[in-house]
Amino acid sequence: MAVRKEGFEGPVFEKTLLDVERGVYVEHWSLSGEVFGFKGEKAWTIQKRRLRGGLQEGVDIVRLNNGSLSITVVPTRGMGIWKGSFKGNLLGWESPIKVPVHPHFINLDERGGLGWLRGFNEWVVRCGLESNGAPGEDIITDNMGRRKSIMLPLHGRIANIPASELKAFVRLGKPLEIGLYGSVWEASMFGQNLRLSTYITTEPQANWVRIHDIIENLGGTRAEMQLLYHCNYGRPFLEEGARLLLPIKRVAPRDARASEGMDSFLSFRKPEPGFVEQVYFFELLAGADGWTKVVLEDKDRKKAVSISFNLERLPCFTLWKNTASLEEGYVTGLEPATNFPNQKAFERSKGRVLSLGLRERFEAELILAAHIGEAEVLRLEEDVRKIQGLIEPKVFDSPIPEFSPLG
Amino acid sequence: MAVRKEGFEGPVFEKTLLDVERGVYVEHWSLSGEVFGFKGEKAWTIQKRRLRGGLQEGVDIVRLNNGSLSITVVPTRGMGIWKGSFKGNLLGWESPIKVPVHPHFINLDERGGLGWLRGFNEWVVRCGLESNGAPGEDIITDNMGRRKSIMLPLHGRIANIPASELKAFVRLGKPLEIGLYGSVWEASMFGQNLRLSTYITTEPQANWVRIHDIIENLGGTRAEMQLLYHCNYGRPFLEEGARLLLPIKRVAPRDARASEGMDSFLSFRKPEPGFVEQVYFFELLAGADGWTKVVLEDKDRKKAVSISFNLERLPCFTLWKNTASLEEGYVTGLEPATNFPNQKAFERSKGRVLSLGLRERFEAELILAAHIGEAEVLRLEEDVRKIQGLIEPKVFDSPIPEFSPLG
Amino acid sequence: MAVRKEGFEGPVFEKTLLDVERGVYVEHWSLSGEVFGFKGEKAWTIQKRRLRGGLQEGVDIVRLNNGSLSITVVPTRGMGIWKGSFKGNLLGWESPIKVPVHPHFINLDERGGLGWLRGFNEWVVRCGLESNGAPGEDIITDNMGRRKSIMLPLHGRIANIPASELKAFVRLGKPLEIGLYGSVWEASMFGQNLRLSTYITTEPQANWVRIHDIIENLGGTRAEMQLLYHCNYGRPFLEEGARLLLPIKRVAPRDARASEGMDSFLSFRKPEPGFVEQVYFFELLAGADGWTKVVLEDKDRKKAVSISFNLERLPCFTLWKNTASLEEGYVTGLEPATNFPNQKAFERSKGRVLSLGLRERFEAELILAAHIGEAEVLRLEEDVRKIQGLIEPKVFDSPIPEFSPLG
Repeated sequence: MAVRKEGFEGPVFEKTLLDVERGVYVEHWSLSGEVFGFKGEKAWTIQKRRLRGGLQEGVDIVRLNNGSLSITVVPTRGMGIWKGSFKGNLLGWESPIKVPVHPHFINLDERGGLGWLRGFNEWVVRCGLESNGAPGEDIITDNMGRRKSIMLPLHGRIANIPASELKAFVRLGKPLEIGLYGSVWEASMFGQNLRLSTYITTEPQANWVRIHDIIENLGGTRAEMQLLYHCNYGRPFLEEGARLLLPIKRVAPRDARASEGMDSFLSFRKPEPGFVEQVYFFELLAGADGWTKVVLEDKDRKKAVSISFNLERLPCFTLWKNTASLEEGYVTGLEPATNFPNQKAFERSKGRVLSLGLRERFEAELILAAHIGEAEVLRLEEDVRKIQGLIEPKVFDSPIPEFSPLG
Repeated sequence: MAVRKEGFEGPVFEKTLLDVERGVYVEHWSLSGEVFGFKGEKAWTIQKRRLRGGLQEGVDIVRLNNGSLSITVVPTRGMGIWKGSFKGNLLGWESPIKVPVHPHFINLDERGGLGWLRGFNEWVVRCGLESNGAPGEDIITDNMGRRKSIMLPLHGRIANIPASELKAFVRLGKPLEIGLYGSVWEASMFGQNLRLSTYITTEPQANWVRIHDIIENLGGTRAEMQLLYHCNYGRPFLEEGARLLLPIKRVAPRDARASEGMDSFLSFRKPEPGFVEQVYFFELLAGADGWTKVVLEDKDRKKAVSISFNLERLPCFTLWKNTASLEEGYVTGLEPATNFPNQKAFERSKGRVLSLGLRERFEAELILAAHIGEAEVLRLEEDVRKIQGLIEPKVFDSPIPEFSPLG
Repeated sequence: MAVRKEGFEGPVFEKTLLDVERGVYVEHWSLSGEVFGFKGEKAWTIQKRRLRGGLQEGVDIVRLNNGSLSITVVPTRGMGIWKGSFKGNLLGWESPIKVPVHPHFINLDERGGLGWLRGFNEWVVRCGLESNGAPGEDIITDNMGRRKSIMLPLHGRIANIPASELKAFVRLGKPLEIGLYGSVWEASMFGQNLRLSTYITTEPQANWVRIHDIIENLGGTRAEMQLLYHCNYGRPFLEEGARLLLPIKRVAPRDARASEGMDSFLSFRKPEPGFVEQVYFFELLAGADGWTKVVLEDKDRKKAVSISFNLERLPCFTLWKNTASLEEGYVTGLEPATNFPNQKAFERSKGRVLSLGLRERFEAELILAAHIGEAEVLRLEEDVRKIQGLIEPKVFDSPIPEFSPLG
């Protein structure tokens, strides 16, 4: 797939770092913006290398640093973004899992389908593509055409499949855009054959990174699909008194445990050992262009992170509050998705599982940004307020059957 | 194990490429027939290399090209043959799985024992050795001497175990023979300890490759064994109107789905999206030497593939018709075996699971050939007809209890 | 973690061979005692290398040879000790599994939780840390705070987790001490977060190796822990007429099969094909310093191995008699532990599962020695007799409910 872009006319520099079908693999590589005349304050870099030893043995990572914001993409783990940093502030969280874990150390089916949790430490990790959400039984059609009961593991397979293609590219326009392209195949004989193509881009000095994903059904028949972006933040953006701002149409707690926190479901607590997660399911509002924005701001409203995305593509939003101790993983997940992360069978019954026809594509785009300074934060607040407008959020104090099997 | 051969007197050139116990591993190596005076039209080569990136990271492959026919053997996947080519015609098929998948990405137990399907793309893949066939429950004796219920995964483990030994060799007789030797151990403490030794050979310019397998019980007690050669063909040999020719004693459909196709079970349809597989179980006839021959010829009877094997060793033959869309894998499997690929417990109840005593060996030999030209194809038809002779095939329209649990 | 030692004042030479968080990985390295002036008879060496090919591909091993005794430590398999040798005598056993198997080829959940057995061939292998013992159902609390039934696999995960850190060191005192430090993390989001730090040391020419393990709870809440040292011996120390000597307070057979052998439970039989294991559970006696000693001597009382350890830390001792044929693995396991290797749920019900508070550490130390010559063996016998003193061992002929679910 080309790394060109609709509407972009300028030349494109590209470097293939991995292409399994053509037999290309580059172990170490780097590119400096100096080559294109970006020096000093304006310097940017792309660095690809392979990690060694322990659970990270053989994991390829690419660090993309635009001068202000840097991210570490992990092709070996489905093109997730391990960690980011903006002007010294961590984008991501401190998981008990310290390094990017090679998928071959993960048994997704382990512990009743919870094996995914042994590799979970990313800032942004995709959950899908055949399924995401809680582990559980599902019924498939096997090779003999018979109904067969199988167990779907927590959050699906895509985060534990290595990329088949990886390119670094520079779109030489004004502004110049730097990025990575990767493709990841979730395929099985007699199963789904879905290809994720992702473009992860930024601009020199920008405070954002854009994820543009295309999922295509390469199989011979219709295929179901689910996709959730598990975007996770710990300190310094998450802290006692931090708040979530987002334009709400409806919101309901997932379960009784989440109901307990309804009086303050948009603000966050300090780290508490043994804190049991609270999860809220949202239907959001969007602006006229279909886009919405979710903001996590710190207590003093001096720094924030935001995620912008198109509600038509990602109509379900989940808030995961896991303000347990630092050792356990003090973290909140902001999760735009095609569905809520319940068991797939439940989501299917609510019409929230997509179905792609032959060669049909699903596209989604997210912009993840970091913001420092009161003025910036106030502007974000205003953005959310504008989308909310005069519409009164509908807040359910208890789980509702439409969103939640525990309702 | 030596790469010499009973009855062969000439000198043998051999190169050890892998021997885990002696600590030998050669990452890249090649040999040209020029060294032995084979030049120009008569050139042949053996090339060993390691693949990198994605699901093929760390997979060793050996390409053996005799000048007319080439094969790619995959030591890392149990010495299966990924693909072959004869005068530009693909021997094998186009699976949705595009590269040889490293076994450590395969969880055989996944999806109710269907994980094998995530790596399935070979021309010739062995199914066994503890078990093959449909996934299902079986009862074993555990370390405590107690009966224990376990799940056996689809088609067993041997295709997902890397070889422990690999040698390339040239038997310098007339004709000269070139080949590969590999050994693969399927062993567990308190479990089977079976060693597969395989010799895969051909001759310069030949239209065939011979697989000679020896399976030895290295354990301390008797051990059960099953073996099936899943030989898979897509285009150009498989096409609408292609036909299967084979000397039949008895044949029955596996299930109701296969019964539907009894009126044309020996001919093939065009690719059809969502086509559900049809499987037929055969008892074949053999010639005076115990050997039989199965032929797949194209619509115009201008090209064909054949498989020859000894019926005493491989008494069960299965035809797998999976003429689904090209994207799903348009393919037919011709499967000589010790048993039918039903659940092991059923096969045991029918006396079709072998049992090897201490140090006892099982041997099997297959010759897989490709044929271009009407004269060649007619000769093949004649070969099959001769074995059939005047014996009337017994064709069952419905599954029979002897062959099939669905009967 | 430093490789210094309480009470040790001298300088320490150390070499970091692996540190995943700092990005250090050394593929091949060696150190000779000659550097420190140890030559000729007094020579000793440490050699680190990576194995290639087959099931051992990518396995790191370190061979530490003190001049008389050598051991091969396997960082990739949780810092277990694959094999040792003392003056030409094997310390360890001949398993059907011939090479150190990379963890990514092991599916612990396979065959009803018996997958661990596909990699089992070590002299000393730790079983733990979340659990050890027989596979079985257990109830955990999942991320949603709900009780969830999971399957715990045989002997836990620690032996199939690669080390995160590895150092070789030399403590330059008198006597000089040479050793290895390694850390292995058994961690999951919403699960245990236990770090094993191990110091494996010896002295030039010594007949022993010391294992000093520290397990720390790095999680945010209390965590359960189990630890068993599976120390396995075959020939030449195990043979027909070999005997086990140990100071017994109480002993009981695990099950009816073990009851059959009560009349000779401390002596060993010759290899017998199909012999079903016999397992005995012991409460031992200790000397005034809290330490105890277990001795396996050969028939002629001319050579022996011993294991010394502190009973307060490792109060449960298990004897595993598996005198099956040489092909099956003729072996006995001497197993100091925090518990008996029953299913975790049973051990918990008997109060034999440890619980570590935040940052709480558990420490254990074992000294494994080899002894050649009648005088040495007689001294060992005397050591055990002294600890036994006048106390009469309580020997149960049948399983007892306190030790065994089969009682």
